Amino acid sequence: MTKTANIAAALAQAEAGLEASTARWLDWLRIPSISAQPAHAADCRRAAEFAVAELESLGFTASLRETAGLPVVIAHHPGTNADSPHLLYYGHYDVQPADPLELWTSPPFEPVVVDGPHGKRVVARGAVDDKGQVSMWLGAFRAWHEALGGMPVAITVLIEGEEEIGSPNLESFVAANARELAADIAVISDTGMWDIDTPALTTSLRGMVYMEVKLRAAERDLHSGMFGGSALNPINALTKALGDLKDTSGHIRVPGFYDGVEDVSPEQAAEWDGLKFDETRFLNGIGLRLPSGESDRTALERLWTRPTADINGIWGGYQGQGSKTVIAAEAGAKVSFRLVPGQDPAKIAAGFREFMRARVSADAKLEFTEFSSSPGVQIQTGSAAVKAAREALAEEYGRPAVLIGCGGSIPVVEGFHRILGIDSLLMGFGLEDDQPHSPDEKFELRCFHQGLRSHVRLLGKLGGL
Amino acid sequence: MTKTANIAAALAQAEAGLEASTARWLDWLRIPSISAQPAHAADCRRAAEFAVAELESLGFTASLRETAGLPVVIAHHPGTNADSPHLLYYGHYDVQPADPLELWTSPPFEPVVVDGPHGKRVVARGAVDDKGQVSMWLGAFRAWHEALGGMPVAITVLIEGEEEIGSPNLESFVAANARELAADIAVISDTGMWDIDTPALTTSLRGMVYMEVKLRAAERDLHSGMFGGSALNPINALTKALGDLKDTSGHIRVPGFYDGVEDVSPEQAAEWDGLKFDETRFLNGIGLRLPSGESDRTALERLWTRPTADINGIWGGYQGQGSKTVIAAEAGAKVSFRLVPGQDPAKIAAGFREFMRARVSADAKLEFTEFSSSPGVQIQTGSAAVKAAREALAEEYGRPAVLIGCGGSIPVVEGFHRILGIDSLLMGFGLEDDQPHSPDEKFELRCFHQGLRSHVRLLGKLGGL
Repeated sequence: MTKTANIAAALAQAEAGLEASTARWLDWLRIPSISAQPAHAADCRRAAEFAVAELESLGFTASLRETAGLPVVIAHHPGTNADSPHLLYYGHYDVQPADPLELWTSPPFEPVVVDGPHGKRVVARGAVDDKGQVSMWLGAFRAWHEALGGMPVAITVLIEGEEEIGSPNLESFVAANARELAADIAVISDTGMWDIDTPALTTSLRGMVYMEVKLRAAERDLHSGMFGGSALNPINALTKALGDLKDTSGHIRVPGFYDGVEDVSPEQAAEWDGLKFDETRFLNGIGLRLPSGESDRTALERLWTRPTADINGIWGGYQGQGSKTVIAAEAGAKVSFRLVPGQDPAKIAAGFREFMRARVSADAKLEFTEFSSSPGVQIQTGSAAVKAAREALAEEYGRPAVLIGCGGSIPVVEGFHRILGIDSLLMGFGLEDDQPHSPDEKFELRCFHQGLRSHVRLLGKLGGL
Repeated sequence: MTKTANIAAALAQAEAGLEASTARWLDWLRIPSISAQPAHAADCRRAAEFAVAELESLGFTASLRETAGLPVVIAHHPGTNADSPHLLYYGHYDVQPADPLELWTSPPFEPVVVDGPHGKRVVARGAVDDKGQVSMWLGAFRAWHEALGGMPVAITVLIEGEEEIGSPNLESFVAANARELAADIAVISDTGMWDIDTPALTTSLRGMVYMEVKLRAAERDLHSGMFGGSALNPINALTKALGDLKDTSGHIRVPGFYDGVEDVSPEQAAEWDGLKFDETRFLNGIGLRLPSGESDRTALERLWTRPTADINGIWGGYQGQGSKTVIAAEAGAKVSFRLVPGQDPAKIAAGFREFMRARVSADAKLEFTEFSSSPGVQIQTGSAAVKAAREALAEEYGRPAVLIGCGGSIPVVEGFHRILGIDSLLMGFGLEDDQPHSPDEKFELRCFHQGLRSHVRLLGKLGGL
């Protein structure tokens, strides 16, 4: 059997097993493994056990491993070629909460296959994020298992159950098991394509600082008639400070915010120019017409490689029907900054505190809570794994993969780099309209199928087959 | 019996009946007549019926009168002296909601008499606002009823049940019953004293424009990683606009806001100067140290005769525990402007709309709701009734009453002036620390007692007794 024949054989096997792979993915989706809701802890464990059983059936040694929270799935396969690189596949079995339930067309944990403009698609919570994308590489493992009797490369699998709640226990787990998790590169499918015809590798990820700020003024709620004009109003004070976050060009005024931020390389800029991104169409898709953010940057820069400041929540005073003439004792907000490589999360958090303190009266008591702090990540594009992935995608899609940025954060990428010393290959097959955290989350069968085949090709190439 | 003897007799009668008056007041407080909560509609009706029974027992013809909302209590007494002025006593039997319940020391509708720095006080929702203050004049009626067998003057009573929700049905009721409500002056006890030793008449009231503004952006909630930097964030936009409401001196930036606003007269300014108002002590009482508002005005101007802009509530996005990386579809706020005589509420409302529209992207959909619109009021101080009230208060307290402003609004005063053509006498006995809309609302027994006696004196003087 020639090397090419081996990949072809695995692809043929994948083709033959496609229906069974899809059925297993749908079975996994039926388990409501919502990590944010303690009532679903047993479901999370079931979803983890499902993955263990699946990996064992593929010749892996697999087990559930306890953490302070939900368990982690760990599996190993030695591979058939000792000279091949060792891959660490990472994914997560937990999903976002499904509410608001009334906005779903079908029950979130009863997956359905329905028709769409790109053919069949699966609608369910977790369809794409991340059970669907993990099921692609599990399907690819199965194809090689059946075609070759093993994996073409040495593989370690890590599937966690707390990604949707910020992976509170993953870092300590990785650090405690660093030797067991040693690998040459991590492979992650939790990102998107450029469009359904154009594959992509994600090479930059934004980091995040997420903070809550509370501003307290008087020691109790006040009557605005008796105290208005004299007493500090915490909502007025909070809006005045937060309203100053950006100047009229959209630049963020937090001190030192842009320290270390670099422009994209001319090559990268040219490649993105060539993508002819239609921001108007992008915004029209969500009911908007005009771009927001920094007015002196291109749309893709703003989405992928420029830092942001978004107020994700705000509250204070009377929020009910009608009117109440109250001056609240307290107001608060959740504020997040998407960071790009070069920015120091600790400096950004300190800068935000300084920014707020400088803008409120000495009578305002400020209280900060920090929920996330992760830097942006730039992935090296010169590695053998990236090269193999580009080849695999180009062969599968008949056109080259584009190197894109991702506006979101995948903190584990930074964690793997820092703790295990390895880069990540971000090869994902989601589409812009998959609605991963919204009602009617879906994944296209065509994406699932071509994604599975791309993983088959990647494994073959890295295994030298 | 001489005239003086008659007032003295009524005062003696008031003294003898004080315990019974207090008991009736406490019984009234036990009825949770919260107008804002439909579940308490029957309680509101019970509180109204309580007042009807009380007035009937005092020789009034009294009845419940239906409105589109909660009923109004109307009662009449012809008086024993046909030449005396005809008074229209106004009050309200409804109270504010009691929440947050956990901040009350004792249950809000189980009134207790406890010790305080000024002697005994009653703690309950409505203790002062307005059941306690109405109970004072009901007690004065009883004293005259028992001393004289009738009222010294002709009296009409109007006690409404929707004051705490903005009196939505009062104006149409007054207009429809203008002939029946005809009087020479209205008497209202819903304001405060200067301090517990110094009586006051309130001669200026701020009006109010209360609006809700909602700002919508995308048609659904968005993931801040995917859309941050490009999509309009409605909370950022709302805080940016509302944060601009005041300049650094506290001046309000709504276009045309100060049109028609006049400075206080030199005489009034001199009188207020003489009060030696201690703003620091005032603010210390609520846990603050520094005055807010217009920095180029005196404290009493800011509290009484300068217009304000307060954000009374704000909301949007994620308000729960922890973090959620959402860009909300919508954010909203409640904003109120306290107005002074000369300002036109309609112009202020239009100015606020213009202010907001000028500060948000064309992509932001703004929606305004107007809950209140009433002008500020200046009361003439030269009338016979004001003169009689000053005498009554000076005799009761052994020192002259001061003429003060009130930061709050009592829209009915403007309504009586416009519809019935009469001024109002605002003789109230609340103290700064009574907490009328907060937990542990209280009224001092001493204030209740001296207020009741002051009403006895006022009735006697106006009746020529």
